[in-house]
Amino acid sequence: MKKIGVIFSLGLSVLLLAACGKIGDSTSTGNNVAKNSSSGYQTTGQNSDSEYEGVIKNGKYLTSKARGVGVAQNSDNILNLKSFEAGLTQLSKDQFPTDSYVFREGQLLTSATVEKWLDRKSKDNPDGLNPIDNGQKDANKRNPMYVQQLEEQDYMKQKDGKLTLSGITVGIGMNTKDYYEKEKYGATFTTNISKEKMVQEGQAAAAKVLSRLRNTEGVPNNVPILIGMYQQSSNDSLVGGSFYSYTVSKSGNTISSWNDVNVKSYVFPSTSTASVPNDNDETSFESFKKQVQNFFPNLAGVTAQGQYENKSLKGLHVNITTQFYSETEITSFTQFIAQTAKTYLPNGIPIDITVKGSDGTVQSFLAKKAKESSYYTHVFSSY
Amino acid sequence: MKKIGVIFSLGLSVLLLAACGKIGDSTSTGNNVAKNSSSGYQTTGQNSDSEYEGVIKNGKYLTSKARGVGVAQNSDNILNLKSFEAGLTQLSKDQFPTDSYVFREGQLLTSATVEKWLDRKSKDNPDGLNPIDNGQKDANKRNPMYVQQLEEQDYMKQKDGKLTLSGITVGIGMNTKDYYEKEKYGATFTTNISKEKMVQEGQAAAAKVLSRLRNTEGVPNNVPILIGMYQQSSNDSLVGGSFYSYTVSKSGNTISSWNDVNVKSYVFPSTSTASVPNDNDETSFESFKKQVQNFFPNLAGVTAQGQYENKSLKGLHVNITTQFYSETEITSFTQFIAQTAKTYLPNGIPIDITVKGSDGTVQSFLAKKAKESSYYTHVFSSY
Repeated sequence: MKKIGVIFSLGLSVLLLAACGKIGDSTSTGNNVAKNSSSGYQTTGQNSDSEYEGVIKNGKYLTSKARGVGVAQNSDNILNLKSFEAGLTQLSKDQFPTDSYVFREGQLLTSATVEKWLDRKSKDNPDGLNPIDNGQKDANKRNPMYVQQLEEQDYMKQKDGKLTLSGITVGIGMNTKDYYEKEKYGATFTTNISKEKMVQEGQAAAAKVLSRLRNTEGVPNNVPILIGMYQQSSNDSLVGGSFYSYTVSKSGNTISSWNDVNVKSYVFPSTSTASVPNDNDETSFESFKKQVQNFFPNLAGVTAQGQYENKSLKGLHVNITTQFYSETEITSFTQFIAQTAKTYLPNGIPIDITVKGSDGTVQSFLAKKAKESSYYTHVFSSY
Repeated sequence: MKKIGVIFSLGLSVLLLAACGKIGDSTSTGNNVAKNSSSGYQTTGQNSDSEYEGVIKNGKYLTSKARGVGVAQNSDNILNLKSFEAGLTQLSKDQFPTDSYVFREGQLLTSATVEKWLDRKSKDNPDGLNPIDNGQKDANKRNPMYVQQLEEQDYMKQKDGKLTLSGITVGIGMNTKDYYEKEKYGATFTTNISKEKMVQEGQAAAAKVLSRLRNTEGVPNNVPILIGMYQQSSNDSLVGGSFYSYTVSKSGNTISSWNDVNVKSYVFPSTSTASVPNDNDETSFESFKKQVQNFFPNLAGVTAQGQYENKSLKGLHVNITTQFYSETEITSFTQFIAQTAKTYLPNGIPIDITVKGSDGTVQSFLAKKAKESSYYTHVFSSY
């Protein structure tokens, strides 16, 4: 009697597996369901200590349950998406170090959930984090959209070939400018939001998000949840926005305190209305720019994004654009930039330099890590 | 009497210098003319042992006297320009090693000269390397254009702060397909040129070029001249053409013998009409491609250019294009590629991998040198 039961259940599981179509290589026939769900995983491998390994399931990257939501929200300034995600990962690294955690794209909040939360509150959408539409069209009378984007990241620990959810990070992007139209396809108007109001609305939204997350299936009460608050940059900005505060909830669903983040991005060269926090960096950049700009008879455009923590420069992304007339010009220019950057640009911070032709194609690339003094160089060639 | 003479000549040289307008920083007033011409030089600095330093004169890169001629000639397939110039520099490295020679863009042949040489021979243009227009429009009756492009590179030796011309390289690009129109803005027709005819016409052109170069002012009779012969690829090719032979003239103006070059470029994956010389490489590439292609739910495009010497693969440029939905996807993908490339792609050759988004923007980049086993990786980020 017992024997027949075993044969029957084996037969059933083979049937079930066959019905699934493709079976992952690491899943051998006859495993029980519980084991399947934890063993079909691999990781991407870690090529750099400073990056997380990612999760691969049944041979494919485990993409976010809310994949693509961020792209749609940020169509006006894609820099906000890039800097938001890079900054969120950076914040997470302090809390969930890359040597002991594996990164998993958010699996708890679905596209539908995130879209509802980011929308206005209404009869049909009680979960909206943005205020109800009060019907007003005037910039100062309407209720603006405060919350612009939201992203979940999961941090896993590996043990006995299983991955366990061991940390969650949520980033919330807040507007200081809310762009809106009075009629469809009409002109764009702007409601300005004060920094104070933004912080206040952000804390209210974060409290709701934390409480909802704790009540989500699969989220243990004692998993640390990091919430990072991000201020979106305006649509005409040449750098993305920045994180201004964060909180870590060890357990439970209330937020006890917030920590300030003093990281902000700036554009080089600085202008009369937007100057970088440290004059010395501007002088260094200007000297570098002058050398590089005049290398060819035709001018080269030289700009940069710099990230500051208080008054201290933490990193530079330099962009150089010029017209090239030959491969040899690209090679010579790249070697010259490597020397010039070493001489003029600040030491002790990570710097990368991208060199583009006048058609926007990347022609060469230079980079150094914080502790390196010389630049890695690469010229994009063709056979 | 003698003293007055010295004062007079000093006064004259100051006048002459002032008339030149801008005077280079390194040129102090009162130097004689001969010294001027050799001292206003700097070099770009050398960031990689395998690249030449380039020449900077009065703070600016010394661009080719025929700058831009190559770009105009290659408008149909820009890959021919890139691979022609990269290959020419590569040929030169064997003859004029990077540790003892400095690279100078061609200063002997001007745009006007090169344009005349590349044109047809005619009453107005006795120096044309291409045959006279016989008036025929039929593909097999007309005289095709055999010589498509021509480039000069100079190799200098540094001694006592002076640069001396110590080697010249000239590349000559030959057609196997000559594209022409029967009437302006009309359809494009093609005259096919046999390999034998191409080689024969190329040797005749090279003999004229050598003899003319030796008679050019500033070219000593005993400076080695390397002439490299390049076969242009067709307009629809996804790789550039290749060098098929070269000769080195130690002195004098006749060519004694030619050396074969067995380097050729191929596209991966191979097709039924164009397969790579070594099946194992194709298998490796296909395995790599399969792993990478299926990483995301959406497919990634994976292609490569490979360079072969006979049946031996000498290098790979891999191109991967896919749609990304977040920065974290780019980071995870890049780490995965680094591991997968290490596992599947051939060892012992230089490989670089460029990862682009669906809009064509470069998102990340991986590379290894021939002797390295791990890949250098870089994700293009934004603040």
